[in-house]
Amino acid sequence: MENFSFAPTERVKLVEVGPRDGLQAEKVQVPTETKIELVNMLADAGFANIEVTSFVSPKWVPQLADGAEVMKAIRRRPGTIYSVLVPNQKGFEAAMESGADEVVIFSAASEAFAQRNINCSIEESVERFRPVARAAKEVGKRLRVGISCSFGCPYQGEVPVTDVLELVRRLADLGCDEIDLADTIGVATAGQVYNVISQVSAIFPPERLSGHFHDTYGQALSNIVAALQAGLRIFHSSVAGLGGCPYAKGATGNVATEDVLYLLKGLGISTDVDLDAVVRAGDFISAAMGKSNNSRVGRALLSKARS
Amino acid sequence: MENFSFAPTERVKLVEVGPRDGLQAEKVQVPTETKIELVNMLADAGFANIEVTSFVSPKWVPQLADGAEVMKAIRRRPGTIYSVLVPNQKGFEAAMESGADEVVIFSAASEAFAQRNINCSIEESVERFRPVARAAKEVGKRLRVGISCSFGCPYQGEVPVTDVLELVRRLADLGCDEIDLADTIGVATAGQVYNVISQVSAIFPPERLSGHFHDTYGQALSNIVAALQAGLRIFHSSVAGLGGCPYAKGATGNVATEDVLYLLKGLGISTDVDLDAVVRAGDFISAAMGKSNNSRVGRALLSKARS
Repeated sequence: MENFSFAPTERVKLVEVGPRDGLQAEKVQVPTETKIELVNMLADAGFANIEVTSFVSPKWVPQLADGAEVMKAIRRRPGTIYSVLVPNQKGFEAAMESGADEVVIFSAASEAFAQRNINCSIEESVERFRPVARAAKEVGKRLRVGISCSFGCPYQGEVPVTDVLELVRRLADLGCDEIDLADTIGVATAGQVYNVISQVSAIFPPERLSGHFHDTYGQALSNIVAALQAGLRIFHSSVAGLGGCPYAKGATGNVATEDVLYLLKGLGISTDVDLDAVVRAGDFISAAMGKSNNSRVGRALLSKARS
Repeated sequence: MENFSFAPTERVKLVEVGPRDGLQAEKVQVPTETKIELVNMLADAGFANIEVTSFVSPKWVPQLADGAEVMKAIRRRPGTIYSVLVPNQKGFEAAMESGADEVVIFSAASEAFAQRNINCSIEESVERFRPVARAAKEVGKRLRVGISCSFGCPYQGEVPVTDVLELVRRLADLGCDEIDLADTIGVATAGQVYNVISQVSAIFPPERLSGHFHDTYGQALSNIVAALQAGLRIFHSSVAGLGGCPYAKGATGNVATEDVLYLLKGLGISTDVDLDAVVRAGDFISAAMGKSNNSRVGRALLSKARS
């Protein structure tokens, strides 16, 4: 049983990204009040970390234009880290004003993706973040960086592990508290995940490394199993699977938090998050947005509760 | 990399169960012609084994009342085993008349499930199949037996591994060529799957043991990864995820073949099945039934192809 024998003390930190990464990829504009209620419900469910919103220009991300209002109105649960995404120094200042506990910045392991989505080279993206990283450290805030396309790119296809490793080295130099390996388009499979994470873990402390998997090809949970076996203990997920995939219309995006929690519970790994409370939050936001719940666990449990 | 290092010679046999197990659980009555076309498309995709239909009373399974017609009209691809489910001696005779290569019988590891679904005890179900098993062996046909509720039961909840082991021993005595461990309600998680399969493999040859997982709680692919690590090399799956879950309305049932193929391809494990051809078959049957495609890989690839 060595492959699945996790010690009773084993813990996973789940980062709930639905309110930011999820809603950003949804077409429906969600009322500010609903977002506030969602974040409060998620905090009450026990998440150690919630990605609340971003301070990106509303021109680019109109869905999150009310980020400052949301940050101002949410209840702050002690023990929860409230994160916001910032693209630059201006965003960083707005984040600080909003009382964010952690700032999140993004680069990409694919040069083609960086050019098309961040409008600069990978190297330039790292340089652009240097002042933000310095400023975050100066005020004692946590800094997390996401690496888009760590396992594949919609433009260039395969992403060499060496490119991921090189970027991790650069970002570690910036003083990141946490580095996130994101499968932005959900193409990774379990063996690849095990391989990439094992290699990255050799140059960056695995306890500060997280996995962000998408379910576009249904692989997210098997990838999380592989990542757990490779030693990862931080994962991102999105309540009710909020968030689509801009590279395949009608396809699913972020892995659903409920499905991850069900897996971890089955493996006997503690998260301190209450599954039933997350199912209720997922039902709340799906109903509010008039969309079907993308969590299979959510659908199954809600169906049983209503029958 | 030991957890995911499969030898280049590693092969998995996929048993496509959509036409039988899938359609049986769907509400829509599919025209005979459509079923025939579906089975032919699946055979052309390269499956080594297709579960075509059942010879159960149409009173119980009206969806498959045309089983004999389907078996008669399909093209028979050399190299493909065409299986049919039979509940008793009468069904076995009809199966033989239809030219089935393999007969499939079913028991359950849960006493509560056997009583409610087969109307007898587990022990009685095994005895009832004794003449069918003997007859199959006499005419040199393959015999497969499915064990429902090997990982959990909708009525009694947990199913002790000892109950699974006891039933496997009895069924091995019947002379079964293949024993199938089915997660009928999709509740299993990866560690449990690894544990149950490891224990069953100690008393029955793992190369004749198969895993039948449902995606009701989204766990199927992570369960397949666990089963692969425990040594299983035969899996059941259903094109386009055909088949719902009678125990949770609106929930998904059988794991989608396309999603399993994508995983195996990523792991470098050969199946001889053409993923693109299965995606086309899944699109065909979903469109014919007017239902959404339950394969995430199918949805993603079809969306990309159409954009």
